Amino acid sequence: MRHHRDDIVERAVRVLDDHGLASLTMRRLGSELGLQASAIYHHFPSKQVLLGAVADELLARGRRPRAAGAWDDRLVEACYELRDAMLAYRDGADLVATVYAFGLGAQGPAEELEEILADAGFDESLVGVGARTLLHFVFGHTFEEQTAMQAGSDGAVIGDAALDRTGDFDLGLGLVLDGLAVHAPAGRRVRG
Amino acid sequence: MRHHRDDIVERAVRVLDDHGLASLTMRRLGSELGLQASAIYHHFPSKQVLLGAVADELLARGRRPRAAGAWDDRLVEACYELRDAMLAYRDGADLVATVYAFGLGAQGPAEELEEILADAGFDESLVGVGARTLLHFVFGHTFEEQTAMQAGSDGAVIGDAALDRTGDFDLGLGLVLDGLAVHAPAGRRVRG
Repeated sequence: MRHHRDDIVERAVRVLDDHGLASLTMRRLGSELGLQASAIYHHFPSKQVLLGAVADELLARGRRPRAAGAWDDRLVEACYELRDAMLAYRDGADLVATVYAFGLGAQGPAEELEEILADAGFDESLVGVGARTLLHFVFGHTFEEQTAMQAGSDGAVIGDAALDRTGDFDLGLGLVLDGLAVHAPAGRRVRG
Repeated sequence: MRHHRDDIVERAVRVLDDHGLASLTMRRLGSELGLQASAIYHHFPSKQVLLGAVADELLARGRRPRAAGAWDDRLVEACYELRDAMLAYRDGADLVATVYAFGLGAQGPAEELEEILADAGFDESLVGVGARTLLHFVFGHTFEEQTAMQAGSDGAVIGDAALDRTGDFDLGLGLVLDGLAVHAPAGRRVRG
């Protein structure tokens, strides 16, 4: 049965990437795999749970080795990895942000960001909100980038400015990090 | 014809709020209004343009008088108005963020945020990126809040933590403002 579960997730990733999130239904997946819907529900009790597994698979495929040492560089590394993992598959940002909101998957990035802030000695009250603020920025920015890119490549007519202005991920991330640095423990406030 | 255009937007807002963004199609709108699709395309050359008009209508309905004086209070006022306007209609955050990404509507909040930052004397290079960083945070946070709330009220099974943790909008916004304050003109760096 374990084998089947991986097959279902693998095929779901392909349906997502080829046809988009709206096309990723239990029925379609069953018909692509030649399985009854009940066989899919055996592994995934609801569509929400299936989407959670697909989101976690996307994040796992996007994992990169960690190199940075300073807290702010570590946060940048984690945020870029998350962004790039979502951009690598059609509707990846929409999927991962949705799954995170459901609380049924895609919790890894939040946990890593919290760990980095805790390691750096941030006050406990700031660890959760700091991680979530970074996450909301990354989700908001990446959703915009991906929506504009996909609309452009689908041939949809979009505003001229839409594609030009999405290249400021590092600048926006820098502003959020500047806000965190104000609250960093003494001696760690100056960012590299 | 002007009359018809407003009717179409009005009905589209109702379809969105009753059935969600995925159900808001030109075909459905035509059948609800007893119009040929061509009559809708007369006013809205594409679905993207229609969605832009619907997003702008949601934002117009959410407008509130402005009271704040200091730059950071003005930004808070504008960000809360945007969040509340999106939360007031089903899938409002998804719609407004998508339309903004297309560059075919929902540009008002970005323009107001830029105006506030420019008024406060921020360096020109920071006005655009500062406004967009705030916007990405608001979109990311509000999308999460709305997704969790809607899933809960639809009876979908979601993680226990999902509804508890969405109440930190003011704290996250405060962190982004702290980051902006670092770059504020001398004499305006301390936030009220």
